[in-house]
Amino acid sequence: MEMIATIQASTAIAVGLIFAFAALGTGIGFGLLGGKFLEGASRQPELAGMLQVRMFIIAGLLDALSIIGVAFAALLLFANPLLAALGS
Amino acid sequence: MEMIATIQASTAIAVGLIFAFAALGTGIGFGLLGGKFLEGASRQPELAGMLQVRMFIIAGLLDALSIIGVAFAALLLFANPLLAALGS
Amino acid sequence: MEMIATIQASTAIAVGLIFAFAALGTGIGFGLLGGKFLEGASRQPELAGMLQVRMFIIAGLLDALSIIGVAFAALLLFANPLLAALGS
Amino acid sequence: MEMIATIQASTAIAVGLIFAFAALGTGIGFGLLGGKFLEGASRQPELAGMLQVRMFIIAGLLDALSIIGVAFAALLLFANPLLAALGS
Amino acid sequence: MEMIATIQASTAIAVGLIFAFAALGTGIGFGLLGGKFLEGASRQPELAGMLQVRMFIIAGLLDALSIIGVAFAALLLFANPLLAALGS
Amino acid sequence: MEMIATIQASTAIAVGLIFAFAALGTGIGFGLLGGKFLEGASRQPELAGMLQVRMFIIAGLLDALSIIGVAFAALLLFANPLLAALGS
Amino acid sequence: MEMIATIQASTAIAVGLIFAFAALGTGIGFGLLGGKFLEGASRQPELAGMLQVRMFIIAGLLDALSIIGVAFAALLLFANPLLAALGS
Amino acid sequence: MEMIATIQASTAIAVGLIFAFAALGTGIGFGLLGGKFLEGASRQPELAGMLQVRMFIIAGLLDALSIIGVAFAALLLFANPLLAALGS
Amino acid sequence: MEMIATIQASTAIAVGLIFAFAALGTGIGFGLLGGKFLEGASRQPELAGMLQVRMFIIAGLLDALSIIGVAFAALLLFANPLLAALGS
Amino acid sequence: MEMIATIQASTAIAVGLIFAFAALGTGIGFGLLGGKFLEGASRQPELAGMLQVRMFIIAGLLDALSIIGVAFAALLLFANPLLAALGS
Amino acid sequence: MEMIATIQASTAIAVGLIFAFAALGTGIGFGLLGGKFLEGASRQPELAGMLQVRMFIIAGLLDALSIIGVAFAALLLFANPLLAALGS
Amino acid sequence: MEMIATIQASTAIAVGLIFAFAALGTGIGFGLLGGKFLEGASRQPELAGMLQVRMFIIAGLLDALSIIGVAFAALLLFANPLLAALGS
Amino acid sequence: MEMIATIQASTAIAVGLIFAFAALGTGIGFGLLGGKFLEGASRQPELAGMLQVRMFIIAGLLDALSIIGVAFAALLLFANPLLAALGS
Amino acid sequence: MEMIATIQASTAIAVGLIFAFAALGTGIGFGLLGGKFLEGASRQPELAGMLQVRMFIIAGLLDALSIIGVAFAALLLFANPLLAALGS
Repeated sequence: MEMIATIQASTAIAVGLIFAFAALGTGIGFGLLGGKFLEGASRQPELAGMLQVRMFIIAGLLDALSIIGVAFAALLLFANPLLAALGS
Repeated sequence: MEMIATIQASTAIAVGLIFAFAALGTGIGFGLLGGKFLEGASRQPELAGMLQVRMFIIAGLLDALSIIGVAFAALLLFANPLLAALGS
Repeated sequence: MEMIATIQASTAIAVGLIFAFAALGTGIGFGLLGGKFLEGASRQPELAGMLQVRMFIIAGLLDALSIIGVAFAALLLFANPLLAALGS
Repeated sequence: MEMIATIQASTAIAVGLIFAFAALGTGIGFGLLGGKFLEGASRQPELAGMLQVRMFIIAGLLDALSIIGVAFAALLLFANPLLAALGS
Repeated sequence: MEMIATIQASTAIAVGLIFAFAALGTGIGFGLLGGKFLEGASRQPELAGMLQVRMFIIAGLLDALSIIGVAFAALLLFANPLLAALGS
Repeated sequence: MEMIATIQASTAIAVGLIFAFAALGTGIGFGLLGGKFLEGASRQPELAGMLQVRMFIIAGLLDALSIIGVAFAALLLFANPLLAALGS
Repeated sequence: MEMIATIQASTAIAVGLIFAFAALGTGIGFGLLGGKFLEGASRQPELAGMLQVRMFIIAGLLDALSIIGVAFAALLLFANPLLAALGS
Repeated sequence: MEMIATIQASTAIAVGLIFAFAALGTGIGFGLLGGKFLEGASRQPELAGMLQVRMFIIAGLLDALSIIGVAFAALLLFANPLLAALGS
Repeated sequence: MEMIATIQASTAIAVGLIFAFAALGTGIGFGLLGGKFLEGASRQPELAGMLQVRMFIIAGLLDALSIIGVAFAALLLFANPLLAALGS
Repeated sequence: MEMIATIQASTAIAVGLIFAFAALGTGIGFGLLGGKFLEGASRQPELAGMLQVRMFIIAGLLDALSIIGVAFAALLLFANPLLAALGS
Repeated sequence: MEMIATIQASTAIAVGLIFAFAALGTGIGFGLLGGKFLEGASRQPELAGMLQVRMFIIAGLLDALSIIGVAFAALLLFANPLLAALGS
Repeated sequence: MEMIATIQASTAIAVGLIFAFAALGTGIGFGLLGGKFLEGASRQPELAGMLQVRMFIIAGLLDALSIIGVAFAALLLFANPLLAALGS
Repeated sequence: MEMIATIQASTAIAVGLIFAFAALGTGIGFGLLGGKFLEGASRQPELAGMLQVRMFIIAGLLDALSIIGVAFAALLLFANPLLAALGS
Repeated sequence: MEMIATIQASTAIAVGLIFAFAALGTGIGFGLLGGKFLEGASRQPELAGMLQVRMFIIAGLLDALSIIGVAFAALLLFANPLLAALGS
């Protein structure tokens, strides 16, 4: 039981790291990206629709790793595969 | 019981990390994004409505990861799935 | 009792982290955002009212995560859900 | 008694973190914001009154989280809710 | 069993590091890249299709290492090859 | 007595943090703010009086959190409310 | 067996470091490089093909060390040569 | 006696932090402020007297927190109020 | 045997440091270098061949230390010369 | 005697911090300030005398906190008031 | 034997530091240097040969310390002179 | 004797900190200051003598704190006043 | 013998620090210096010889401290004068 | 003897810090200074001799603290005055 606790405790820190940096990276990334989008849309409003579609594609790419991180963090929380090695 | 305490203590730190960096990332992100929005809106006030709608879409993307982090932090607090591994 | 102390002590640090970075992020964010607002308002004073309304919307988004963090920090302080796992 | 000391000691560090970063964030934020205000007021002195009113609104938003942090730090100091969990 | 716990605990931290920095790097990278893309697309909308195709190629390269990291992190989680050395 | 020493020792560090960052934040903040003021005053000397009055208002806001921090640090030093929990 | 665990645990941290910084470095590098490529391609679309070919060559060089790092990390995971010294 | 030593040792570190960051903050602050003053004075030498008077006012504000920090550091050194809690 | 484990464990960290910073340095370096190359090649496409040849020479120099580091890291992994001192 | 050693050892670190950051702050501060002075003096050599007098005033303010820090560091070294609390 | 292990373990960390920072420094240095070279060569292609010769001289100087570091790291690995002091 | 060793060991670290940051601060400071001086002297060579005299004055101020730090470091090395408290 | 090991182990770390920062400093320094040299040489090729001679003089000064550091690191490795104090 | 080892070990770290930061500071300082010198010399080659003489004077000032640090580091290595306090 003690060994499970050691693994779960450092898993908690890992999950915290994943969410913290994912939020930070997304915040900085969309801050830069969205600023450029609004700049472009305000200078050429007739292109705003086209730019928005394209921005969504980049947004998907930008978020991808963070979302994957979230998925793995959820996995770590609900069914920690690291515990399987203990044979319990 | 002692093992639960070890896990919960490092869960507390993880929750603190998630909220701290989520707030920091959102603060920096909206500072950059909102500044560009106000700049665009003050130069072309007739576009302000259109820009605001589009900014909300970006805001949703920018916040997404932070909100997911908040949801998971709430989960960690109220029903810590890491404790399930202890079979208690 | 000792286990409760361990959890509460690291909860205190987590609460400190949440408030510290929330204040830092809000400070930097509104410094950037408000500077742009004042710049826009001083160049086109007839738009100041419109810009201010729009800035409030961004301010709400910018503060959102920090306020959520505050709410959860309050929860951690007054009814720490991490202690429920100890069955006490 | 020893457990109370552990909690209070890390509460002291948390209070120090809250005040330190609140002061740092407010300092940087008002340095950026006030510089823009003085710039606007010196270029268009007839708008200075209007700009100042608007700056106060932003100042309120900028300070909000720091003031909330101060309130919670005071709470931590005078009636530490984290000690309630010890049943003492 | 104790040795397995030691390895798994530091594996958890390693997985956290991989996802955290992968999300941060992708966030910053696409923020810079997508901003330039939107800038180019808003200045020369007739080139937007061509630019988008080319941006996808760069996106593939930019993501490559992060995706490899995700794959290896998954490997570490589900079938930690570091445990093989223990002969268990 | 030993528990009091533990609390007081970490209180000393907290007080050091509060004063250190308050001085740093005020230094950076007034460096940015005052530079803008002198710039404005040297370009339009007839506005210097008006600008100075307004700068004092910002200075009050900029210093507010630091002064509050000083007050609480004094409280921590002379009548540490964290010791009340020890019932001594 | 205990000595193997010590080596494997610090190997896990090393693998985490390698993937984390490889992803960060590739993210920043392609963000800078791809931005310049899109800038060049949007200004002179007739050169886009030539530029892309050349960018691939740089991409190869930029990725080289990261890929070598991945290869060595895989080696560390599957057949840790550091264990050979233990004669087991 | 041992408890007094613990408190005094961490008081020494706190005093060192206060003086170190006060000197750093004042150095950076006056470097920014004085550079602007000399710039203004060399462009409009007839305003130098007026600017200098005004700079002294800002200097007072800029130094205020550092001087308060010095006063409290002196208090900590000569009559450490944290020791009063020990009843000795 | 225990002494071998101590050396090998810190060798693992050293290898991780070497690969991590080599990948980071190469990423930043080629991001700066390749950006300048593409800029030059898009402005004067007739010089692209000549520039590319010269860039390869710089690339060789830029990579040199990283490659040497990789070689030594491989040496550390497969035939750790630090173990020779143990006479085993 | 042992308690005196504990206090003196951390006093030594505090003195090192004070001198280190005082020198760093003064170096950065005068680098910024003196650069502006030489710039002003080379553009308007007839004002150099006036600017130098004014620069000395700023230099006094800039150095003030560092010199106070030096004085207190000397006090800490020669007649450490923190030892008085030990009643020895 | 144990003392040899202590020295060799910290030698491993030192070797890791040397290679890591040497690769980082060379990467940043040649990124800056090579960018300037390609810029010069694309603006005045007739000077490219002369510039390249001169760049090699700078490259030699830039690499010198890193190469010396590599040589000493090799010495540390193969014939650690620090062990001679143990008389073994 | 052991207590003397504790004090002297942390004095050694303090001396290292003083010299390290003094050299760093002086290096950055004179890099900024001297660059401005050479810029001024190359634009108006007839003023070079005057500028140099004035630069020496600033250099004196810039070095002052570092030299004081050196003097105190020498004092710490040769006649450590912190040892006087031990009455030996 | 054990005391020798303690000294030699921390000497190894010191040697690693010296080489690591010497390589980093030289890399950044020559990156800045060489870039300016190539810029000057490509704008006025007839001055390239003169500039190169002068650059060598600066290079000597820039390298001086690093080379001295290398010499002392070699001394530390081969004839560690710190061991003389042990009288062995 | 053990106490001598404690002092010498931390002296080794201090010497490493002194050389490391001295090399870093000199590298950055001469990179900034020499770049300005080459810039000035390439724009006005007839002033190069005069500029070089003046640069040597600044170089002397820039190096002064580093050289003093080297001298004291040598003193620490060969005749560590900190050991005198042990009366041995």
